[in-house]
Amino acid sequence: MNEERFAERRRRASDAAKAEGLAGLLVSPGPDLAYLTGHAPPPLERLTMLLLVVGREPILVVPALERVLAEGSPGAAGLEMLDWRDGEDPYRHVARALPAGRYAVTDQTWSSHLIELDNATADCLFVAAGKALPLLRAVKDADEVERLRAAGRAADAVFDDVVTLPFASRRELDIATDLDRLLRSHGHQRVDFTIVGAGPNSASPHHHAGERAIEPGDAVVMDFGGVLNEYCSDITRTVVVGEPGEELRRVHDVVRAAQQAAFEAIAPGVAAEEVDRAARSVIAEAGYADRFVHRTGHGIGLEVHEPPYIVEGNATPLVAGMTFSDEPGIYLEGRFGVRIEDQVVVTADGAERLNDATRDLLPVE
Amino acid sequence: MNEERFAERRRRASDAAKAEGLAGLLVSPGPDLAYLTGHAPPPLERLTMLLLVVGREPILVVPALERVLAEGSPGAAGLEMLDWRDGEDPYRHVARALPAGRYAVTDQTWSSHLIELDNATADCLFVAAGKALPLLRAVKDADEVERLRAAGRAADAVFDDVVTLPFASRRELDIATDLDRLLRSHGHQRVDFTIVGAGPNSASPHHHAGERAIEPGDAVVMDFGGVLNEYCSDITRTVVVGEPGEELRRVHDVVRAAQQAAFEAIAPGVAAEEVDRAARSVIAEAGYADRFVHRTGHGIGLEVHEPPYIVEGNATPLVAGMTFSDEPGIYLEGRFGVRIEDQVVVTADGAERLNDATRDLLPVE
Repeated sequence: MNEERFAERRRRASDAAKAEGLAGLLVSPGPDLAYLTGHAPPPLERLTMLLLVVGREPILVVPALERVLAEGSPGAAGLEMLDWRDGEDPYRHVARALPAGRYAVTDQTWSSHLIELDNATADCLFVAAGKALPLLRAVKDADEVERLRAAGRAADAVFDDVVTLPFASRRELDIATDLDRLLRSHGHQRVDFTIVGAGPNSASPHHHAGERAIEPGDAVVMDFGGVLNEYCSDITRTVVVGEPGEELRRVHDVVRAAQQAAFEAIAPGVAAEEVDRAARSVIAEAGYADRFVHRTGHGIGLEVHEPPYIVEGNATPLVAGMTFSDEPGIYLEGRFGVRIEDQVVVTADGAERLNDATRDLLPVE
Repeated sequence: MNEERFAERRRRASDAAKAEGLAGLLVSPGPDLAYLTGHAPPPLERLTMLLLVVGREPILVVPALERVLAEGSPGAAGLEMLDWRDGEDPYRHVARALPAGRYAVTDQTWSSHLIELDNATADCLFVAAGKALPLLRAVKDADEVERLRAAGRAADAVFDDVVTLPFASRRELDIATDLDRLLRSHGHQRVDFTIVGAGPNSASPHHHAGERAIEPGDAVVMDFGGVLNEYCSDITRTVVVGEPGEELRRVHDVVRAAQQAAFEAIAPGVAAEEVDRAARSVIAEAGYADRFVHRTGHGIGLEVHEPPYIVEGNATPLVAGMTFSDEPGIYLEGRFGVRIEDQVVVTADGAERLNDATRDLLPVE
């Protein structure tokens, strides 16, 4: 990726900050820093922070021992580097570079850094970037969508492979290990999560795969993903070992219809919460309103959860190029749960799915 | 680990908060939450927070979809669970549970959560736990020290193995891949970093292994570690391909002497900064004061960097059971660098090394 692209992103971020009446944007290690500079150090106790002050050139504050690394990052051109050594106070460096005003701070900035910065500055106010500038990375360009598509295709292939393996009598953990291996063999550089919940455990949406031996008749929720060429995958399917019971079949039909209804509600200009309502109303009509305990979706990109959130209360109008999950679920505690999740991209007149593994209630052995 | 141990840790944390005049401690996902509850969800935008209010029973605020998971965590006994659903405002739940006062917030708490919490509360002040209660996890018990010892032994074995492999003509990245594989084969569940800097790159302390082909005469700094049974390893050694030049030999001698001087300075009651000074004075006397661009060490445990920091300005008296790195270095930009790092534990009358791979300037092929 060329350096100009990073500079352009920084200009866009600075313009957005200005439009919001902010004095600037302060960016900590994590996806936002990677997006704006290509620099991706681990977030640690030593302060690294990009200062995008409206009307000024960007400054990257870095620990001295990471200066060379920062200078070599793909978006380093046009960044003034301000380094500090262990034993010095980096917050004073930052304070000197910030005119009075209201600044957005990226969400993942450690609180310890924010508190020190607040103490070091006199006339600066800090607000959460996720609230003030939630859409900084939300609209993907063609290259980003293509990367998400590739990650989605790889996740689909993992699902197609895993359902050919035996489930009965093996532990959730064994299936999770299979998913980990398959994600890597289908090109993922990193595996982030391999949720496998069988039988009653499928009713716990974020269940950690455990020692439970999978039994005939079990619903098995598999929710897995990771990173392929910097961009995230995240897919969920629910399968059944052998023949499904009547209620499992019915609940699966409801979730599938809700997932489809949400998909069909997506278009540019539609409020994010309308997509949530589309899924929720299908589930409510079927009598399971109380059992759909989470939002319908989350944005995806450099992070597996990022804006826009598809949730009641979020009136953000969708824009072509936004990418997010469509993942309603129904959870009957102590019995079973069902979730179906695809990633989607908003198009000029609707949406395109980035996952296409079958959404049937697939029987496994 | 039994539940009582977690409850005891929570009581100790609450007592420490009280002793500091705090109204309580607010704990976010990460090592502190794992230490106090055994609950280890990924830190995400949904609020999970342990409220340790002095004089009250602990409360764990969790997203509804992770409640079952939280209830199953090893330290869940004695925790009141307060769950919230997507679309609800979790910060109001927290605000209602906090009497007015000054609260320590764990360092890694996302700034977005802290800002929302600050907005939701009227008479609460927030300070960084790393500053107010830095030593919460600093003094390890016997089980923790044994886990760190096991992680250190495994890292030593990785070093012993890697130096038998060919270096010349291979890329830094290839050695990094070897280190990753060896860490796993010696029992690590997770690999966190595999820094390999050869030739001029060895002068960049946090260099990312890259495409550079390693050449005869190169100094190669290898700094690697990960997690074995929840506790971290972190070791650095500098080797040379073939025969070292005169200056490399001299610099390595200086760093080794500095590392030894720091080790010998460690004892209960000694200030952390005194250990830093012991290393720094050896390097300054040799004329390299400016080339030692980082602190002498960092604590280690559930995190690879945690208090106590061995740095000028930190007067914290060392206590038996504290564990940290001893890792001076000298970096000659554009030419080469040398660093030697061991983990150590403070004992009743001095210190014990948790790494024992040779500290000689080992030649490799």
